Amino acid sequence: MQKLEQLYEGKAKKVFRTDDPELYIVDYKDDATAFNGLKKGTIAGKGVINNQMTNHLMRRIEKAGIPTHFVQELSERETLVKKVSIVPLEVIIRNLSAGSFAKRYGVEEGIVFDAPTIEFSYKNDELGDPLLNSYHALALKLATAEEIETIKKYAFAVNDILKAFWAECGVTLVDFKLEFGRLTDGTIVLADEISPDTCRLWDEKTHEKLDKDRFRRDLGGVEGAYAEVMQRLLAHDAD
Amino acid sequence: MQKLEQLYEGKAKKVFRTDDPELYIVDYKDDATAFNGLKKGTIAGKGVINNQMTNHLMRRIEKAGIPTHFVQELSERETLVKKVSIVPLEVIIRNLSAGSFAKRYGVEEGIVFDAPTIEFSYKNDELGDPLLNSYHALALKLATAEEIETIKKYAFAVNDILKAFWAECGVTLVDFKLEFGRLTDGTIVLADEISPDTCRLWDEKTHEKLDKDRFRRDLGGVEGAYAEVMQRLLAHDAD
Repeated sequence: MQKLEQLYEGKAKKVFRTDDPELYIVDYKDDATAFNGLKKGTIAGKGVINNQMTNHLMRRIEKAGIPTHFVQELSERETLVKKVSIVPLEVIIRNLSAGSFAKRYGVEEGIVFDAPTIEFSYKNDELGDPLLNSYHALALKLATAEEIETIKKYAFAVNDILKAFWAECGVTLVDFKLEFGRLTDGTIVLADEISPDTCRLWDEKTHEKLDKDRFRRDLGGVEGAYAEVMQRLLAHDAD
Repeated sequence: MQKLEQLYEGKAKKVFRTDDPELYIVDYKDDATAFNGLKKGTIAGKGVINNQMTNHLMRRIEKAGIPTHFVQELSERETLVKKVSIVPLEVIIRNLSAGSFAKRYGVEEGIVFDAPTIEFSYKNDELGDPLLNSYHALALKLATAEEIETIKKYAFAVNDILKAFWAECGVTLVDFKLEFGRLTDGTIVLADEISPDTCRLWDEKTHEKLDKDRFRRDLGGVEGAYAEVMQRLLAHDAD
């Protein structure tokens, strides 16, 4: 497998072409951004943790029967993935109120919902990733009705898997963002990453934040929080 | 039926108690507001038109089998309605892109959707009536799952009725807002009003705006537009 030219540089990752037209290499950076790019910084070691944590969780999800873009971890920061075209919907699942939900609807953080919520944002930096629902996504032709149904089904199933896994690590999965892609043949697969950049993870007992909110809200101990959740994940697997 | 004390004064209507605890009187004003109350004005004669148009359309909707709060027109501006507690969800149906949809998702106005969209806003002036979906409404306990299903079903049915009626008047129903209420026994009924204040109505041929956008966007001819749609409604019925 040969790493060829860079195709794309995102906020936290670079994507490279390979000599196989159906495979890309993702390279995780330590760069961190928040508030649609308005806040910028670096979280030392984040790229390594996010790469390894994502791959660990993608393997679990794949094993549970949900197709993902994951192929093989190549190095500390690099992973081989299937080529996808990303569906321009950010999929957010929430188990507890926090972040934009709490702010938008004027409620406190930490309310445990009777059932998880799902929401879509239109993945569009210029528009500020506006919230939309399935009807809007269809009207804007961002995905087909069948794709939206598949994405919803997969997202709730991923929540069940991740919630149970993190609970075993003493961590509450508050909410998280997923992205899905289409393979060349149109199959919908889970793509992007699953990490403290894309999940809100709270210590089960102290409710201490172990995720990117420490960076967003200048809470300090950012590197330590990322290391802590990674440590718990590895300890779980060593059991 | 005796009109007793005022219970509530909204942006465009006053509500009065009557000597029947299950009946209220709604009194339509000429006051107009836009942009969550930031813009204020008066549209002469609007109260009379909105009262009569709403009642005309509510009767049609009731006849088609959808329960409404309408009881009886009492005067030019006053109508007797059933007492409801309003479900705090603004229900918006869109047949074409316009207004906040076009702005939020960066598309032009006037795109005809393959199928109508439905969306909910959390009716809360302080929060700016934020968009939400059914999952959020459930998580916030704004309505039950059964109520949300009923509201969706009624809203799409109302769209079918109104779209067909306005088409017969040479008017395109672009989008509109509905509100629903709970009777004392919990029954969900259509409430509030259906007027150029709450619907986008375009002339079918010229696409001229015949609704509150003339006020919102300072297009002039506001009173004339309200009179024009009322005239078309009355001409339809005289046929």
